[in-house]
Parts: sequence; C-alpha cells; structure tokens
Amino acid sequence: MSAREVTTKDNRKVTSLAVENHIATLTLNDPSSRNSLSREMMAQLQETLDDIAADKDIHVVILRAEGPVFSSGHNLREVLAMSDDGTLSDLFDQCSTLMQSVVTLPQPVIARIDGAVTAAGTQLVASCDLAYASEDSKFATSGINFGLFCTTPGVALGRNVQPKQAMEMLLSGDFIKADRAMEIGLINAALPADTLDSHILAMARNIASKSPVVIKMGKAAFYKQLPMSLEDAYKYTSGVMCENMETRDAKEGLTAFFEKRDPEWRGE
Amino acid sequence: MSAREVTTKDNRKVTSLAVENHIATLTLNDPSSRNSLSREMMAQLQETLDDIAADKDIHVVILRAEGPVFSSGHNLREVLAMSDDGTLSDLFDQCSTLMQSVVTLPQPVIARIDGAVTAAGTQLVASCDLAYASEDSKFATSGINFGLFCTTPGVALGRNVQPKQAMEMLLSGDFIKADRAMEIGLINAALPADTLDSHILAMARNIASKSPVVIKMGKAAFYKQLPMSLEDAYKYTSGVMCENMETRDAKEGLTAFFEKRDPEWRGE
Amino acid sequence: MSAREVTTKDNRKVTSLAVENHIATLTLNDPSSRNSLSREMMAQLQETLDDIAADKDIHVVILRAEGPVFSSGHNLREVLAMSDDGTLSDLFDQCSTLMQSVVTLPQPVIARIDGAVTAAGTQLVASCDLAYASEDSKFATSGINFGLFCTTPGVALGRNVQPKQAMEMLLSGDFIKADRAMEIGLINAALPADTLDSHILAMARNIASKSPVVIKMGKAAFYKQLPMSLEDAYKYTSGVMCENMETRDAKEGLTAFFEKRDPEWRGE
Repeated sequence: MSAREVTTKDNRKVTSLAVENHIATLTLNDPSSRNSLSREMMAQLQETLDDIAADKDIHVVILRAEGPVFSSGHNLREVLAMSDDGTLSDLFDQCSTLMQSVVTLPQPVIARIDGAVTAAGTQLVASCDLAYASEDSKFATSGINFGLFCTTPGVALGRNVQPKQAMEMLLSGDFIKADRAMEIGLINAALPADTLDSHILAMARNIASKSPVVIKMGKAAFYKQLPMSLEDAYKYTSGVMCENMETRDAKEGLTAFFEKRDPEWRGE
Repeated sequence: MSAREVTTKDNRKVTSLAVENHIATLTLNDPSSRNSLSREMMAQLQETLDDIAADKDIHVVILRAEGPVFSSGHNLREVLAMSDDGTLSDLFDQCSTLMQSVVTLPQPVIARIDGAVTAAGTQLVASCDLAYASEDSKFATSGINFGLFCTTPGVALGRNVQPKQAMEMLLSGDFIKADRAMEIGLINAALPADTLDSHILAMARNIASKSPVVIKMGKAAFYKQLPMSLEDAYKYTSGVMCENMETRDAKEGLTAFFEKRDPEWRGE
Repeated sequence: MSAREVTTKDNRKVTSLAVENHIATLTLNDPSSRNSLSREMMAQLQETLDDIAADKDIHVVILRAEGPVFSSGHNLREVLAMSDDGTLSDLFDQCSTLMQSVVTLPQPVIARIDGAVTAAGTQLVASCDLAYASEDSKFATSGINFGLFCTTPGVALGRNVQPKQAMEMLLSGDFIKADRAMEIGLINAALPADTLDSHILAMARNIASKSPVVIKMGKAAFYKQLPMSLEDAYKYTSGVMCENMETRDAKEGLTAFFEKRDPEWRGE
C-alpha cells in the first residue's frame, strides 16, 4: 500500500493516506467542515486504521489535518438529527470504537497539530500515543458551551492529564494554548511551526527504525497494565518480557548489541 | 436562599454562605482556630453542602476562608480526646463523607486560597474541582510532624498529583509554595494576590453561564469513569452523552449554535 | 548494623551499606558493569533490603551508585543466556520482587542520581519513594533500541509519569535530561551537582527525625489506597488513621505539640 483513499457512496474523500519508508501519514482532509468527526469521517478513519493494523509495512502513523482546524469534534447537525431519530447511541459507539482503535493499533500514532482542536478532536489527540503541536495551536473541550458536556472526550483527557487540569477545560470550555497543553501532559511538546514537521519526522523515523513486532507487543502491554494493581502488572508484564525475548528480533537486537553492529529487524 | 448561616447549639457560626447571581460563596469563618476542621466546622459544612446540592439556583460554589490560614486541618484536641474515648472513627467517617460530598456535589466547587493550608485543609483543596491560590499561599500535609501521617489527605492528594510529588509532601511535612502546587497539579494556577478574586469570579461566572443540569451530569460522570478500564469508561460515558442530548438544554444549546444566538438555559 | 556487605560465592561485593544516624546509604558498587542489575546485583540488593526491612534502627534509605552510570538495567548477556535456557521468567520474577520490595519497604527510599540511568535502572529510580538527580543526569528506557521493549520498567514509569510522557521514552529509547525528568514527575528535583548530597541529606535527616512506625504505616497505606475507588480508599484509610492514633508516638506527638516541645519518638 503506497497510498490509499477511502471513498464513500458519493465518492467524497475526507481522509487520505500516504506511506513512505514505513511511515504512514493519515490526513483529515475535510477542512470545509473543520475536519468534523462526521459519521463519514469516522467511517473512513476506522477503515483506514483497520487496514493499517493489518499492514506490516507500516511501522508508525502520523495523524495530521488539512486546514486551520485539526478537528472540531462531532458534526453537531448529525448529533441533533440522530438524537431526534433515537439513534444517537450508534454515533457514540462508532466514536468510542474509533478512539479505542487508535489506542489498540499495533503501530504508534503521532498526532501532528497545527491549529485549533475542539471537543472530540481533543479526544482524538488525547487518544494518540504521542502528540506534537505548533506553538500557536490551541485545545478545548468546548461541548459545555452548547449544552453537551464533553463526557466521552473526558475519558481520553482524564487519562492524559491530572483531574483539576481536565476539569478546568471541561467546565470552562475555554481554549488552552499549546505550551499549557505541554505542561499538563496533553501533548509531548509545543514547537515553533517551522520545526514541527522536521521534529515529528525525526521521531517517526526513530520509531520506524525499531522492530515493529517488538513495538507492537510493548505498546499493547503498556496500556493493558496501566489500570492493574502493581502486583498484577508485574506478573503480566514479566510474561510479556519473556514472550518479547522469544522473538527473532530480540535475539538479533541483543546479538547486534554485543557485536557492536546495527541490528537487522525482520519484524518477527 | 440568598444568604444562610448554620448555627450550632451555642449559636456559634463557623461558616457562612452568600449567594449572588447563581454563585454561592461558602466561607470558612473561624480564623481564631485557623479554620480547623473541627466537628462543628465539618457539621456546618456538611449541612451547607447538602442544602446547596438541593438548590437549583446555585450553579457554582466558591470555597474561601477568613484569616491568614485557609484551614489547618483537624482540631487536634478533638482528635486526641476522641482517640481516648474510642470514638475516633466517627471523626474520620464524618470527614470522609464531607470530602466525598464536595466531589459528588452537583455544582462545581472552586477553592480560593490566600494563605496557608495544612493537613486535612490540603485534603479539602484537593477535593475541590478547581483551585486558585495567591502566589504567597503555601500547602503542606504536615501530620507527620506530630506523629499522625496524613493518610486520609493522601487519598485526595494522590488523586491530584503524581506519586513522588505526593510522597515528598507526605513524608517531609514541609510546605510547598503556590507556584510548585500549580506545577504538580494540586491547584490550577498561582496568581498575584490582587488578581485572585477577579480571576476566580470570571471563572465562576463562566461556569454559572452554562446549563447547570448539563454541568451536573458531566461532573458526576467524569469522576465516575476515571477509575474504570478504557472500554468500560467508553461504554458508560457513551450512555451519559445520549442522556445529555435528551435534556432540553442540549437541544436548545445546539439549536442556538446553529441560529448563531446565545442559548437560553432552563436547567432541564 | 553499622555497615554491611553481602558477598556472593566468589566473594564479590556489588553493593555496600553504611548506616549512620538512622540513615542507611545503600550503594550500587559495580561500576565496571555500569551497575547492571545482574542476578548477583539483584540478589545482594534483595538480601540487603530484607535486612533493612527488619532493622528498626534504620529510618530512611539513600540509594546511590558508584561511577558515572547509576544503573544500566539488566545484564543483557544474562538475559540472552537465560532466554536460551528457558529460565528467563526467573529473572523477571526476581526483578519484579525486588522492585516491589522497594515500594513495600517500611522505610522511605530516596534515589540519589548523578549520571546516566537506563532501562531497569530507570525502573529502580521510578520505584523509589523520592528521587533527586544532578542536573547532568539523564534517563532512558532504552530496551527498544536492542529489540526488548521496556515493558516491566513501563510498570513503574507509567505509575510515575503521564502516558504520553512515558510512551515518548518507551518508544524512542532516547534519553531525557534531569530537568525534563523533574517536569514529568519521574524525579522530585534536578539540582546542581555540588548541592545534590546536601539536599538529599537534609531530606533524609528530616524523614529520619519523624516517628518510623508512623512513616511505615503511612507509606504502606498510601500505595495501597492509590488504585482503590474513592469510597473504598476513604474507608480503608480512615481505619489506618485510627490505628495510627493508637500508637504511642501519635499520642506523644500531639501531646508535645500542645506542650510546645519537641516530641520524643520511641517507634511504637
């Protein structure tokens, strides 16, 4: 898969995917809707993530957006219409599945933000493994402003930042700037706009240079052990370490280390 | 309820309440005891919080204190006497119920600190949804200095700040300054004393301007989902989002958004 | 116990212990292996910690290292050999037990870092109650570089720092500097090298001056309540507070407070 486009029944593409050197760049490409997480957008993202999960050529994903808004969250006309139809739970099921697909994706996902992010858009950023933003970017969980508390975004936000910092965003609906987002742990770093891409590309290349099978095991285990008791977490992860060492790549990695040469990963 | 005073059998008032424009200001008003959380103080706070919980006119609570000490924590003479009487568990039951009543209160609670806070006083601040302090304020969990580890304050502290930061306070008993309290997430911001009230009032007005029924649903759901697994949290909060959209205020909020006008909340 | 050395069958000592004024200084003393957590090193640390746990004369432990590397983590030749032998689970069981012994040790453990820390070395630092490092120190979870994801170190790291900050270290394998380690909560402070020892000694003396029996109760309860629901945590810790007040030292501490004199702890 060198490039991929998912189309809907009217052939509208709201996402695009490009793959180069094991790095997939997944773009939210619906700037006219401020990249709202419409059902269409979520369906295309889900289909693309499912494809990526099965694609061993892809080692890492950069999630970016076209236009000045990374994502404005749910399409509010859809929310209102589905509420009237009694089908709103379908929307949140779809969204929750999508967000968890980012967390459970075998490959790390790096959010690349250069603009405004609101509501479920912030949830999407919080669901990524890593996130880097330009200094002018800003983040809000703004649902409370129109009577819909960002309760599902609060799931991802509350697992990224400390409670008072999350509650300030959720209760006020106000934007925080990128440097504050970095301080509270919502993103990894706020960077000058002209260095954002080079910084993210360096991180993506770094991750792409590791063994993808080992990254996959490690990423999954990290999130799985987090809510466990300390004792259970150690029991579980000790087993994962043993499984990790049974991979061909771990033996190659240690052998290369002793032989003072670069390892040659095979992803197995 | 425009103003309220709870009196005890000897008519002593150690708290006071004023309500204006949907903003309740609850004051710890026993500076001669350094606003210790005596049984009397806790009883009056509990009664007032129970009243606030049932008062739909109140949208947000500011918790403040008279005097240079926000609160010094438990009344140590009471602690010693109740320990001798074998009734000490009543004290901690009362305190734990009070602290949880802050967390489960339908309205957000903003702590306003301008001075020193120690032991269960710090627990009270940590139990609030938001907290802002003057730059000269300081915080300690000082029980260890007199042989009583701040174990119950550690419950609230440990859910606000990271473990090493909590343990440094709990083991040393030392004060940290407001700017450090902000860095570690115990408070939202450390502010110049002369801007503290205007900053808090602006936040209180912001929150008071939202739909109180939506705030109530969102606040409760946030704390309830935090300890859940990611999957359970999404299942639970997806249901809360649907309930939220069934409120009159959510439909009004979205409609007003589309009509580019301010929403008119009815709190239902 | 004024000083102690654990020797192995070939009489090699890779740790040393000195005790003075209730402060134990436990040293990783195998700089030629970069203080790797070899089976020998872990066995000696375990034996020493078990002795310390039973030694009422010791009130606090400083964990330090000889040489420019605090610890490089597991001995990779052992890892490879044990993987080939099918006995690798023994290694991780030993390591997990050791790390949990730091957490459950009755006495607080302060890590003193002046140099580089990698992989399970970072896990050891994260497992300590407090940590202070010289400004030139640096920290990594570097296993991914040789094909062995730092999954067990991620247990301790993930309970110290926020998820994106942990994932950046785990996925990249890159070092972070001491000031960043302080920002994310992995250590309590980054200090000029020439003030590191005086700062740590002051903290150790502070902790050593408290009641050791009360510290023991408080430390154990803090970690035990952290993963509980709020309600369960308050029920459990309210009981601990009552037990704490039944100690002789708590009554002495409060009495001394009222009599405006220094308390005389007996550790009971």
